[in-house]
Amino acid sequence: MTSEVQKAGRPVALLTRQESFSAAHRLWADSLSDAENRALYGPCANEYGHGHDYVLEVTVKGAIDPATGMVINLTDLRDAMRELVVSHVDHHHLNHDVAICKGLNPTTENLAVLFWDRLGTRFPGLLDEVRLRETPKNWVVYRGERT
Amino acid sequence: MTSEVQKAGRPVALLTRQESFSAAHRLWADSLSDAENRALYGPCANEYGHGHDYVLEVTVKGAIDPATGMVINLTDLRDAMRELVVSHVDHHHLNHDVAICKGLNPTTENLAVLFWDRLGTRFPGLLDEVRLRETPKNWVVYRGERT
Amino acid sequence: MTSEVQKAGRPVALLTRQESFSAAHRLWADSLSDAENRALYGPCANEYGHGHDYVLEVTVKGAIDPATGMVINLTDLRDAMRELVVSHVDHHHLNHDVAICKGLNPTTENLAVLFWDRLGTRFPGLLDEVRLRETPKNWVVYRGERT
Amino acid sequence: MTSEVQKAGRPVALLTRQESFSAAHRLWADSLSDAENRALYGPCANEYGHGHDYVLEVTVKGAIDPATGMVINLTDLRDAMRELVVSHVDHHHLNHDVAICKGLNPTTENLAVLFWDRLGTRFPGLLDEVRLRETPKNWVVYRGERT
Amino acid sequence: MTSEVQKAGRPVALLTRQESFSAAHRLWADSLSDAENRALYGPCANEYGHGHDYVLEVTVKGAIDPATGMVINLTDLRDAMRELVVSHVDHHHLNHDVAICKGLNPTTENLAVLFWDRLGTRFPGLLDEVRLRETPKNWVVYRGERT
Amino acid sequence: MTSEVQKAGRPVALLTRQESFSAAHRLWADSLSDAENRALYGPCANEYGHGHDYVLEVTVKGAIDPATGMVINLTDLRDAMRELVVSHVDHHHLNHDVAICKGLNPTTENLAVLFWDRLGTRFPGLLDEVRLRETPKNWVVYRGERT
Repeated sequence: MTSEVQKAGRPVALLTRQESFSAAHRLWADSLSDAENRALYGPCANEYGHGHDYVLEVTVKGAIDPATGMVINLTDLRDAMRELVVSHVDHHHLNHDVAICKGLNPTTENLAVLFWDRLGTRFPGLLDEVRLRETPKNWVVYRGERT
Repeated sequence: MTSEVQKAGRPVALLTRQESFSAAHRLWADSLSDAENRALYGPCANEYGHGHDYVLEVTVKGAIDPATGMVINLTDLRDAMRELVVSHVDHHHLNHDVAICKGLNPTTENLAVLFWDRLGTRFPGLLDEVRLRETPKNWVVYRGERT
Repeated sequence: MTSEVQKAGRPVALLTRQESFSAAHRLWADSLSDAENRALYGPCANEYGHGHDYVLEVTVKGAIDPATGMVINLTDLRDAMRELVVSHVDHHHLNHDVAICKGLNPTTENLAVLFWDRLGTRFPGLLDEVRLRETPKNWVVYRGERT
Repeated sequence: MTSEVQKAGRPVALLTRQESFSAAHRLWADSLSDAENRALYGPCANEYGHGHDYVLEVTVKGAIDPATGMVINLTDLRDAMRELVVSHVDHHHLNHDVAICKGLNPTTENLAVLFWDRLGTRFPGLLDEVRLRETPKNWVVYRGERT
Repeated sequence: MTSEVQKAGRPVALLTRQESFSAAHRLWADSLSDAENRALYGPCANEYGHGHDYVLEVTVKGAIDPATGMVINLTDLRDAMRELVVSHVDHHHLNHDVAICKGLNPTTENLAVLFWDRLGTRFPGLLDEVRLRETPKNWVVYRGERT
Repeated sequence: MTSEVQKAGRPVALLTRQESFSAAHRLWADSLSDAENRALYGPCANEYGHGHDYVLEVTVKGAIDPATGMVINLTDLRDAMRELVVSHVDHHHLNHDVAICKGLNPTTENLAVLFWDRLGTRFPGLLDEVRLRETPKNWVVYRGERT
């Protein structure tokens, strides 16, 4: 027997998974002077860095497969987040020993774009949003949009 | 006296209410073989099911009524969620003793669509989004979109 | 050295900050009779008011500045929220001793519009969304849209 | 068949229920001068009051009844909290229209003691702890102890 | 160099780890009649069960080892919780396909005692408290105490 | 007028305040070899450190002052936490540029003891508990107890 909800075409839904990682970082722009960096970033520019329990939320959007009742398998989304992002940054210092962050000023904005670019290669056409929470009080969303 | 915010036309806002329910479910597609089901759904396909404290968040969107300062009365939204959804599924097993889920493979995606269809009859033209959180780490959003 | 994510144009991201305040309020429409107010708002119309720990989340949207890696400086967003909203309403009764709420029926919808209007003067063209959580179970989003 | 955990005597456990209510209050000691009140309580002494979404957590402690597997029935604890506390204070101003708070300076400490005294009459010898959260960042615990 | 905090004897601290699991259950006492069960447990006695996202918090108490700065290694606590509890119950129905729950009426109280007994064998003399959250609004604590 | 709850002696209550800070740290015991450190602490021993959004909860216990209705003024507790702890560690690397952590292996256990010792000088005889949450899934409590 088939439920009513599966009869009238294919609904399009958004599926989100949350993972977390703990990392250190320092905000520092190589193109700016020391004084400019300290004025711009305040204590976030302290030399040895500080850290966060980052929360990463990744959303894919697509038609619900009538055979499985899923957009994609949640375990595939979880595994991609762990393999392409979390395993690289968790328990590391983003400015010093993370290859995928080399040369990057690790603001939340730049990290969200980086993670989008990496995850987009795994889910072409499905990625809808990357949300990166730096603290419980501030976060960034990136949806692949460019000027 | 009338505030400035009520003078310049009618602002359009989104109002969201959160309710929760506790239910058991098993992921199982009748169209697939036993082996396929177990490969696809893993432990979610265990015979007797498992369960969640589901969190349901429903958003309506509309102009703020200048007489009341509300999009709709929050108690109407709350009551509809309880009457049309929560009272049917709370403390039940979605595969076995829930009439509105009969024939449905209770993935989070399918449930979100089902709940949208039920709530849409109560708030025609107002429903904006149904968000169903299966666990604190994964959730589905459905906005009535179809391919 | 410049990271790949900074090479291909300017990504557009959304930055959100969360602040909170504790206030009392009473829902009451001057244009309605006492009986109508009590029927419409129920216990929210009780004479002396009640209160909430409101949570305010403000989102700005813009291109990430390649020099700073930021949409805007998070401290500017935080300071604007505190100066233009929180300092006016925190530890006050919205119906009685808050100048910016004078004449306003303090529903969550009306407050969200008021806060949008105030913050929009500080961040012209950047404000994307104001989310005001009245309790953990209900909240309003306003995006500057009008009918 | 009886599980091992039910064989060796009667384990003593603690059962906690959480309820919430929204109320306004003003901190004000009748025994102090106006200036003293304002110096002591700061913005909490503002004339019309402010408010909170209070969270009340009540713990009972007792032997697990081998017939039921429960310390007491959770629904009895929930009902007592609603009847003896929440129904009196929810959506009211603690200084003005709450009979059980008459004459009380509604600090979190005084409220916790008041709620303990009321709930203790329902669960004599069982009440272990009353925890009252005024905001997510401060709370009071009272365990019936006196100097 | 040694910090002041490590000089004056060995401080005794409590270390807690949180894990979670999703399971179905039905409250049912074999010693009671059908009518008694339904009167006592209400909807929790529905035939096919319902479910929760249980949160398990386990606390060990002991002196901080001056060589390591730890009570015990947090990974040992985490691994024990997963091996002795979570792996047995996660994504299962506690009444039907969980060997360690065989014959147990799966109230939160009984589960907390069961988990304490299992974890105590791994950390003799160190276990301080098992806290099992059935929903965000009710939980049980067991500290090994018996009448 | 005096409420009933203030008549029968002086109730003893516990008052808790929560503050947070973001810091980097590396677990490393100077008394152990490199290999031992890496075996013991795993990724927590990575050279440049990682980080957390620490949550600090401090509890004082005392009689409620009948004149004020408070154990101590919450603002005094908040200010002490900020002055004696948060201002020293927030946005710093605990191993490199925090004077109060000099020589300390910054495990959560050691930090909790350090913070207790500092706060105890401000609230002699009143401090009841320091709870330090390293991540949402693990935390340490210290109550001044020593072997």
